[in-house]
Amino acid sequence: MKELEKITPMEQDFAKWYTDVVKQGNLIAYGPVKGTIVFKPNSYGIWEQIQKNLNEYFAEKGIQNVYLPLLIPEKLFNKEKDHIAGFNPELATITKVGDKELDEKVFIRPTSEVLFADLFKNSIESYKDLPIIYNQWANVVRWEKTTNPFLRSREFLWQEGHTCHSSAIEARKFTKGMISTYAKFLKNYLAIPTIIGKKTPKEKFAGACSTYTVEAMMKDGRALQSGTSHYLAQNFSKQFDIQFKNENNNLDYVYQTSWGVSTRLLGAIIMTHGDNRGIIMPPRVAPIQIDVLELFANKNKEVHVYCENLYKELSRKFRVRLDSSDKGPGFKASNSEIQGVPIRIEVGPRDIENKSVTVVRRDTLEKIKINNENIKEQVEIILNEIHDNLYAQAEKRLNENTVFVDNYDEFKAQIKNHKFVVAPFCCLDSAEEKIKNETGATTRCLPKKFDKPLEKHKCIFEDCRKETNRYVVFARAY
Amino acid sequence: MKELEKITPMEQDFAKWYTDVVKQGNLIAYGPVKGTIVFKPNSYGIWEQIQKNLNEYFAEKGIQNVYLPLLIPEKLFNKEKDHIAGFNPELATITKVGDKELDEKVFIRPTSEVLFADLFKNSIESYKDLPIIYNQWANVVRWEKTTNPFLRSREFLWQEGHTCHSSAIEARKFTKGMISTYAKFLKNYLAIPTIIGKKTPKEKFAGACSTYTVEAMMKDGRALQSGTSHYLAQNFSKQFDIQFKNENNNLDYVYQTSWGVSTRLLGAIIMTHGDNRGIIMPPRVAPIQIDVLELFANKNKEVHVYCENLYKELSRKFRVRLDSSDKGPGFKASNSEIQGVPIRIEVGPRDIENKSVTVVRRDTLEKIKINNENIKEQVEIILNEIHDNLYAQAEKRLNENTVFVDNYDEFKAQIKNHKFVVAPFCCLDSAEEKIKNETGATTRCLPKKFDKPLEKHKCIFEDCRKETNRYVVFARAY
Repeated sequence: MKELEKITPMEQDFAKWYTDVVKQGNLIAYGPVKGTIVFKPNSYGIWEQIQKNLNEYFAEKGIQNVYLPLLIPEKLFNKEKDHIAGFNPELATITKVGDKELDEKVFIRPTSEVLFADLFKNSIESYKDLPIIYNQWANVVRWEKTTNPFLRSREFLWQEGHTCHSSAIEARKFTKGMISTYAKFLKNYLAIPTIIGKKTPKEKFAGACSTYTVEAMMKDGRALQSGTSHYLAQNFSKQFDIQFKNENNNLDYVYQTSWGVSTRLLGAIIMTHGDNRGIIMPPRVAPIQIDVLELFANKNKEVHVYCENLYKELSRKFRVRLDSSDKGPGFKASNSEIQGVPIRIEVGPRDIENKSVTVVRRDTLEKIKINNENIKEQVEIILNEIHDNLYAQAEKRLNENTVFVDNYDEFKAQIKNHKFVVAPFCCLDSAEEKIKNETGATTRCLPKKFDKPLEKHKCIFEDCRKETNRYVVFARAY
Repeated sequence: MKELEKITPMEQDFAKWYTDVVKQGNLIAYGPVKGTIVFKPNSYGIWEQIQKNLNEYFAEKGIQNVYLPLLIPEKLFNKEKDHIAGFNPELATITKVGDKELDEKVFIRPTSEVLFADLFKNSIESYKDLPIIYNQWANVVRWEKTTNPFLRSREFLWQEGHTCHSSAIEARKFTKGMISTYAKFLKNYLAIPTIIGKKTPKEKFAGACSTYTVEAMMKDGRALQSGTSHYLAQNFSKQFDIQFKNENNNLDYVYQTSWGVSTRLLGAIIMTHGDNRGIIMPPRVAPIQIDVLELFANKNKEVHVYCENLYKELSRKFRVRLDSSDKGPGFKASNSEIQGVPIRIEVGPRDIENKSVTVVRRDTLEKIKINNENIKEQVEIILNEIHDNLYAQAEKRLNENTVFVDNYDEFKAQIKNHKFVVAPFCCLDSAEEKIKNETGATTRCLPKKFDKPLEKHKCIFEDCRKETNRYVVFARAY
């Protein structure tokens, strides 16, 4: 194992801090094709926990998992014009197999709307077959120009859900319900607070009628889009001819939704909770929740036996790792810290004498002596406290750094000041473009909680200044 | 939902039977690129159970899950000559992104030895970092000419494990241990008996030193290779320069293994257990273990309430589905049967009166009246009996249809007779080739249980007829 290296302080250089944390936390290696990454056990383990727990939420909603092909023939992809226009520049294209040219180009899926549309077309006859609520866990490829581990890579992992409904009302309800599910999941499992809202027409998904989003605030004040849910209306069903017989025995096109979260969430975890010692894993998705560290065990067999028993006992309920190597106590502690393990339990000869162990919290670095009865119960309480503390810290930061402005000068100042800025805004594409060029900020969403504001304000955009009751969150974003 | 159609009897046309079962069992749809398939909930659900349970076996062996990129640059792939020669004709090749030509061709992984080699090269310093025992669940692409759902498709899902060890002995032991794990898994979860053995030099994995296999017998007597484990020796580590410092502080190349099972297992399940009514799901990996069928429920509210409660109660322990639709009893039973659900519980008004329910076993079609106390316990016993029965049937068939021969005439007759034929054989590549051309049979393995035969026999191959103590299983194979 390589020696632990230093992490650049986030105050000094946030981007460098992020890269250092990712590298030192034993999270990834770079793949041989530029912009691809290897998910090592310490990051893939988080993704496995996300899959497991989100699948439970999905099962409650009657969602069924499926798996569709990686490969999309050119003709199929070209059916929905906005969709192909949105994705074309990033499409990895297979033209050959071995030494043979293919007759038709084949794309690697950047998302699977057209594949699901093709499937649905042949699966539905009447309203009795509806709704269909499918999800898949899959890899997708988008050939991005600039890449960053977890946040933007040429291949990433995600879940993408796709549904068909017999009415627009039901489909819209499902779209909104899913964005709430994501917000709940991020809160309950990742300890990440979010702003729920609707995307502006400019920022919505290519091919969607409307897009809902959960936006999280990173420690540098930038926004990270953490999950989206799209109401596709009949945009795809009309192009792909997905019809059903309704209750009146008339043919109609189905109403569709799609929705997803991706391995970006791993980036969100790092930049929401991490500190200058590295990543801090939210306990409920941490691949390792507890490190048991044998201190000076080579000199004391009693410590070794004790730790092995403690490891076995805790493993019944938690994801635990035992470090019984011959490294020094300082190295073992640093190694646990830099990998973000929520709790480490240090056991040395004196602890055995005193019938106690030392628990160290990764979030507060607090050392807690606990007696060695009911360790499991005490540890469970501490893990929940860590989750609650991480969430509370993040929520406080989000609230303190979200500000309302009603004029463009203040807007620019607050964006420069790394804030989430809520502003009255008419949502013209050209205005968004200009604001982005001038300030680096993009619209994140029309937040749900400002749905019905009490009073109208003038649009922030100086060429507009019309009265509006639309409020939009702006921020610089990942 | 479409009307249930008929399944061709397997005695009449086994290939047609298989296609019908796959289609009628609601297992797949065909993808838009020829040779690709959609895994629908009823087949993807089996794969999820396989993942979950095999992951538990893997965790016991200290295996860590990771995820490596889909994309392999041409240069990297070309480093191991046997490996590239084996895979080149089937490699899907990305040459363009959007409208731009790439500088270097990129292959879609057909397997990931070179990606893992590239990762290991930068991860290992000394023997203290070894062994490394990684696994990934992933999709791979091999552009096969003839395809068949689950058995041979252009994209399939699998797990591929890759390990590095400090000694040849340890790596060989791991290779053999994994093939035993697969055999145990197939027995305990899929109810499939297998013959464990070593591949002949001609049939081993491209780039391996030796390959071990588990071979299962399908109902038509053909063999299905169901899992493989490869001892790679230093073949890749030398090409990719994966070195470590051993205990004597000298540099050495690591010894490697790789091993995998794939969604072929779904084909194995169908062709091992299925009958003329369709697939029969082995209970421990069935996505739905129990169908609760409300009979005449629209006329009887008591039945409906009873079934809902039964569904809730059983769901605590099993994967259950409730059919409370307005279809007739016959349709509901057929629908459950054709999807291979191990048990259906039929509840009609009379059952409520008699305080009993009717359990129908999918394997034997036996109807069992059970009283409605302790249903959970009774159902668990029946599910275990179904597993045991499926295994016993398959084992009996395997034993009865595996024959020993010592001359080529009998060999040809028994192959024609759809048997697994064990024969003395010197394992010359050219002899294998000729036998394959003449009989359609390939070598499946040198079986473990014939490792040390009591007596030598003459090689089956007529141009050879040397005395040998090698025994080889031949069969026609998928």
